Amino acid sequence: MKIAIMGFGTVGSGVGEILMNSFDNLAKKAGEKIEVKYILDLRDFPDSPYDCFIKDYNIILNDPEIEAVIEAMGGTVPAYEFTKKLLLAGKHVVTSNKELVARHGTELLQIAAEKNINYLFEASVGGGIPIIKPLINSLTGDDITGIVGILNGTTNYILTQMIKNGKTFRAALSEAQEKGYAEKDPTADVEGIDTCRKIAILASLAYGKYVDSNFIPTEGITKITPEDAKYAQAMGYSVKIVGQCVKDGNGVYARVCPAFISSESPLAGIDDVFNGILVQGDSLGDVMFYGKGAGKLPTASAMVADLVDVAKHRNTHIRILWAESEEGYLHDGSKQKYSYYLRVSGAAEGFEEYAAKKLPGLENEFAVIVPPVSEAELEELLKSSPFDGHEILGKIRVI
Amino acid sequence: MKIAIMGFGTVGSGVGEILMNSFDNLAKKAGEKIEVKYILDLRDFPDSPYDCFIKDYNIILNDPEIEAVIEAMGGTVPAYEFTKKLLLAGKHVVTSNKELVARHGTELLQIAAEKNINYLFEASVGGGIPIIKPLINSLTGDDITGIVGILNGTTNYILTQMIKNGKTFRAALSEAQEKGYAEKDPTADVEGIDTCRKIAILASLAYGKYVDSNFIPTEGITKITPEDAKYAQAMGYSVKIVGQCVKDGNGVYARVCPAFISSESPLAGIDDVFNGILVQGDSLGDVMFYGKGAGKLPTASAMVADLVDVAKHRNTHIRILWAESEEGYLHDGSKQKYSYYLRVSGAAEGFEEYAAKKLPGLENEFAVIVPPVSEAELEELLKSSPFDGHEILGKIRVI
Repeated sequence: MKIAIMGFGTVGSGVGEILMNSFDNLAKKAGEKIEVKYILDLRDFPDSPYDCFIKDYNIILNDPEIEAVIEAMGGTVPAYEFTKKLLLAGKHVVTSNKELVARHGTELLQIAAEKNINYLFEASVGGGIPIIKPLINSLTGDDITGIVGILNGTTNYILTQMIKNGKTFRAALSEAQEKGYAEKDPTADVEGIDTCRKIAILASLAYGKYVDSNFIPTEGITKITPEDAKYAQAMGYSVKIVGQCVKDGNGVYARVCPAFISSESPLAGIDDVFNGILVQGDSLGDVMFYGKGAGKLPTASAMVADLVDVAKHRNTHIRILWAESEEGYLHDGSKQKYSYYLRVSGAAEGFEEYAAKKLPGLENEFAVIVPPVSEAELEELLKSSPFDGHEILGKIRVI
Repeated sequence: MKIAIMGFGTVGSGVGEILMNSFDNLAKKAGEKIEVKYILDLRDFPDSPYDCFIKDYNIILNDPEIEAVIEAMGGTVPAYEFTKKLLLAGKHVVTSNKELVARHGTELLQIAAEKNINYLFEASVGGGIPIIKPLINSLTGDDITGIVGILNGTTNYILTQMIKNGKTFRAALSEAQEKGYAEKDPTADVEGIDTCRKIAILASLAYGKYVDSNFIPTEGITKITPEDAKYAQAMGYSVKIVGQCVKDGNGVYARVCPAFISSESPLAGIDDVFNGILVQGDSLGDVMFYGKGAGKLPTASAMVADLVDVAKHRNTHIRILWAESEEGYLHDGSKQKYSYYLRVSGAAEGFEEYAAKKLPGLENEFAVIVPPVSEAELEELLKSSPFDGHEILGKIRVI
């Protein structure tokens, strides 16, 4: 099978590396050799062991020998147009591009189905952790009630530093940037946008209908303080940024937000750049997938596995249920009841029923966990005694 | 698609329950309805909502309408003969029968390949945890260097009780039996036989060559004492029974044994009846799969997912690499170096370099962790100073 790689940055060059180093082994698994015929990149790579670089996309599109293409360009321009034309031309596409899948997945999967080929994107969520295929092929015997995922290694690293080493958000971010875990412009990570795209993809697959990431309420890491982290630890919780989706009647709701996670949960121990995805099923109970959620080789490895799958299914479309969703299918979940951690100003008198937690060094404030309430009920609660007259210094959902 | 269920015990009836309760949902996922036409069992089930019980296996074998069969009989007689004839007749078979897969997997998969059908066994390892398909379809972009799994919920429950509540093995086993976690005859669980079959299946899939469970050195739980558990906790380890396989040159070695697991490992926190399977890859690093490793509905859910897969791949054989292995492929791994926990009699004088650990209440003994050695080197070490003259009261490998 002859393939092309589009985009020779971190992930694309990782794919090239694995395809070269594991050539024989992969041929055995795939049932045939996988050969890189073209690499598309505007840059030059004089030191690469490959010598098949091109700058014109049309060479790939018009070469009938090319059966599958690795899309590791990122973004939607020109990746969307390129991918669509390749699929229409009957070429399989394997991608790590979460933005593209989250935005145009419905259409691109539709084209792949019509052309009896495959558009595969295991690498778009959780790096090398198998989660997309398990959702499509392995967890189909169950009704999935919800998914909670720690889906972004950068913010998880920052939070781990804040909690374990008492760093501020700014200091932890700088360190993450120095170590190469965070981009120069960290907005997509710290504002939760990356997590949002990933949970949108997982929700679309888990229930077979498109969930548009643009309509998922998304809150990032920036408002979490070292004090919140201290209270969390003292009260037996971890603080994480999670993407969550929940089946709710005929609809679904999804959200990205900071969360207090009980130390009993398998998600609580997932630190540093690791990701964990907890799938909750009717029959299965909790199933968790854990591993490195990012990085050159783990992500590239997931793409190569998709390529092997393509080689094994040359003339078969792998059925993926991901239809258009009707108006109102995704709702805001404001009526769902959750416990909340609240950091409250003033003295703790009157808060006995909430077992108020005071910490040494944090004078004239305390924290409580309130029992499950809807968002409207929480608002009412905060207006009434004993909360009225106290300032709420921090508020984080308990999951 | 019309199917039959063979064996209507815990798992088989669980499959019946899910197929009935999720009928419409499954039809959507599979692309067609999945109808139970026969249930084979020698017993009567007058209270079952199903009324298609039969006692003659040949009805299933000779009915051309039956396309797939759930084998939930367990054991190898008559499951082996029945499965083989069904596959030869061109019917897909889905099983949870680890004994049968571990013993006859090579032959049965070979027949399935020749007949262009599928023999699927996700439920044979890890109950509802997806691990078989991820090994076949998702982790193929990587060279798997090793697998370590907590694969038996019964022994993990017993160990958790010994460690967290200081119970003896006998007391914990009785409790497990009362709660229905352990069989009346617990031999297969406590002697490690169940774990051994499961790691043999995983090893056969990970490297594409048959690993015969009969030749895997297997040690169960019975020799672990509450004292070992206490030392483990004091030294920052968990004690678990693990199945392990390691790629070693052109061969592989596998083993089932008690293990000290560092509290840093994601496996350390897997308690009670949960299972965890850690796959170590060249590019991926560590990936872990976690969930309930047994039980009626989790296991049944995995079988139903395999059925959905069969429905989606009616005329396609899902390629599974599992060939005969050559003489000497599986070796005993005695040259592999491991650290060991040793519980030693006598006074700790002379053991300064090993940072000997003494525990209150355990007089005239202590524990050490020795640096990585092969089995022969360990034997030598124990014969020489400072170990000579001391009795070894306990010895557990550190993984």
